[in-house]
Amino acid sequence: MTNIPENTLDPVELTKALINHPSVTPVDAGAMDRVQQTLESLGFACERLKFREIENLYARRGTASPNLCFAGHTDVVPEGALDGWRSDPFAATIENGVLTGRGAVDMKGGIAAWIAAVSRFDNVPGSLSFLITGDEEGEALDGTKKVVEHLRQTGEVIDHCIVGEPTSSAVLGDMIKVGRRGSINATITVTGKQGHVAYPQRALNPIPVLVAVMAELDGRVLDEGYERFLPSNLEITTFDVANKTTNLIPQTASGRINIRFNPTHSGASLQAWIEEVCARHAERSGAVIEVKAAISGEAFLTEAGPFVDVIQNAILDVLKVEADPSTTGGTSDARFIRALCPVVEFGLVGQTMHQVNEATPVQDLYALTEAYTALISKYFKVFA
Amino acid sequence: MTNIPENTLDPVELTKALINHPSVTPVDAGAMDRVQQTLESLGFACERLKFREIENLYARRGTASPNLCFAGHTDVVPEGALDGWRSDPFAATIENGVLTGRGAVDMKGGIAAWIAAVSRFDNVPGSLSFLITGDEEGEALDGTKKVVEHLRQTGEVIDHCIVGEPTSSAVLGDMIKVGRRGSINATITVTGKQGHVAYPQRALNPIPVLVAVMAELDGRVLDEGYERFLPSNLEITTFDVANKTTNLIPQTASGRINIRFNPTHSGASLQAWIEEVCARHAERSGAVIEVKAAISGEAFLTEAGPFVDVIQNAILDVLKVEADPSTTGGTSDARFIRALCPVVEFGLVGQTMHQVNEATPVQDLYALTEAYTALISKYFKVFA
Ligand SMILES: [Zn+2]
Ligand SMILES: [Zn+2]
Repeated sequence: MTNIPENTLDPVELTKALINHPSVTPVDAGAMDRVQQTLESLGFACERLKFREIENLYARRGTASPNLCFAGHTDVVPEGALDGWRSDPFAATIENGVLTGRGAVDMKGGIAAWIAAVSRFDNVPGSLSFLITGDEEGEALDGTKKVVEHLRQTGEVIDHCIVGEPTSSAVLGDMIKVGRRGSINATITVTGKQGHVAYPQRALNPIPVLVAVMAELDGRVLDEGYERFLPSNLEITTFDVANKTTNLIPQTASGRINIRFNPTHSGASLQAWIEEVCARHAERSGAVIEVKAAISGEAFLTEAGPFVDVIQNAILDVLKVEADPSTTGGTSDARFIRALCPVVEFGLVGQTMHQVNEATPVQDLYALTEAYTALISKYFKVFA
Repeated sequence: MTNIPENTLDPVELTKALINHPSVTPVDAGAMDRVQQTLESLGFACERLKFREIENLYARRGTASPNLCFAGHTDVVPEGALDGWRSDPFAATIENGVLTGRGAVDMKGGIAAWIAAVSRFDNVPGSLSFLITGDEEGEALDGTKKVVEHLRQTGEVIDHCIVGEPTSSAVLGDMIKVGRRGSINATITVTGKQGHVAYPQRALNPIPVLVAVMAELDGRVLDEGYERFLPSNLEITTFDVANKTTNLIPQTASGRINIRFNPTHSGASLQAWIEEVCARHAERSGAVIEVKAAISGEAFLTEAGPFVDVIQNAILDVLKVEADPSTTGGTSDARFIRALCPVVEFGLVGQTMHQVNEATPVQDLYALTEAYTALISKYFKVFA
């Protein structure tokens, strides 16, 4: 086991304490108070930001530049099938060196490890800060997005940000996220003319029109990839008519697509393409086609350079692992923070996230604390 | 107004009486008793056949050949939007020479007109019979289908059959139905593998597979028509996934098609084609595709000849109209009766059938009675 210096916080105890607050989005259950009290005991000035029912926290120690921020979320996804758990998901349990509980890796363990790392520094040549939200797993409307808006309005400067999401794949430190694909959803509704199947000439069936639209959208090769990004990908996520009557041509058909896209595209360019395809099929068929698009995040990339180097070097020194600078996976709050500063995500092994028996080896919590400690040291050596 | 001989039944009074029984499938509401009593008063031997909750009636007068049967249904479709009716749909009302009420044309008026025609004959050189069901507008499982099975089992011989459905299009007698297209429904269910849109390689999206299946099925030109038949036609009638989660690739997608087909095809040949297409797409995609097909009726045609001539000549003589021997429209109970004998459909103008304010000119009821009377006369001259 790694040796922990005296008089510093234990990441395992703090992880357990946080798990025991059942903070399933949007419920906070005292989790944010626990984080705040811990940070105040370490000398942080805390600003609570409540948007609608959601608790958020911005905390900072020091006023000098550079300001290195850690971002994370205290909320967790629901426990799922309770009888699949080997122990109470909201009563952290350690057995055989494995800590089990909802949020162990996503991401109460990450928050605890960073706080434990920070507890080892009396001060730094700059500032340390925290951006913690209670709305990452839900709609994410009243969380990091609004905190970032608030920080921009008040002129708060953050120079670099680490997001503690569980980015590691097989072993701790093997993967960090230096970018994320963008995401757009579009709901397409085709309205034709209802009628009887025996008299198709008096009706206009919307289903083949939507089939053709979906086939064209799904058939396009969006790109072959971009730098560290996989090719952009479109998935049809639903297609609904709900006509129970076998001899009826229905009036309406609607479907939805999701595109995960790399920086080859923007949300706006994809929305324009979808609308162009639909307009063409509307004209060809005579049906009315309505498109409702929602861009949940643009693609972004934190380019290779000294900030990414600091993180990769800390991982290599402490964990003896080469970290893959990846851009795979879903969206995260990094999509909002990128508006403020360069952002990289690095945290625990995510294999059990969102599943029953979410768990992390206790050893990984200590090792992550070591790696975060090295990262903070190297950061201020390079940027202060 | 046409002169009605003394001592015969009035088709208008009988139509009104039948409408006033609110016999919405599967409810009978005394309608079958009313028909039976009327036929018994005309000397018919009546056999009631009840299958589950459905009333059916086979009635015959005479034992000699040929046996000319009239087939019809006493059940009606629901009244629909009540406030759209100008009078109570189940209290027949005559205003300005128009009789309004549910079933006026489909097809209590047709039954009444044929009974009124029969009332003009004391006897015929052969037999007259009736096959009346209370289950034509519903599932049609316990109606004519089962009566026909019963008649076959008991060795009852019917030589020709007239079905009194409202086949006329713009004016009385302008169209008769000498055949019907067949109909097959197929429900196609594609099962893939659920997953997250950000990791499509770990999932198998069933929607594009079903889109491709539907595009191929819908894209085939089935034929260019057959004798008096329109080209066969395929309609996609539903397509359902019901996935509310924008970042989820669903596990299952299902859709349904209906094909109205002419005698170029059989239900079995079309089912085999659908299954072949699905098997090919299943193999190509790796998804599991299940097909559930239900053949609701085979295509049939009553060829031109003396029976069709009798009907067309009666119409021409009485109504001064050339009857188009058509095969358009939905299915009818003729699809079951064709197993017994040649069958042709001829009745009122169907424009208001299944709609609010279902109505027929009183004049048409009298004129149809005249045409049916001429038809019966000519029939026995030709076939007796
Ligand atoms: Zn997370
Ligand atoms: Zn009918």
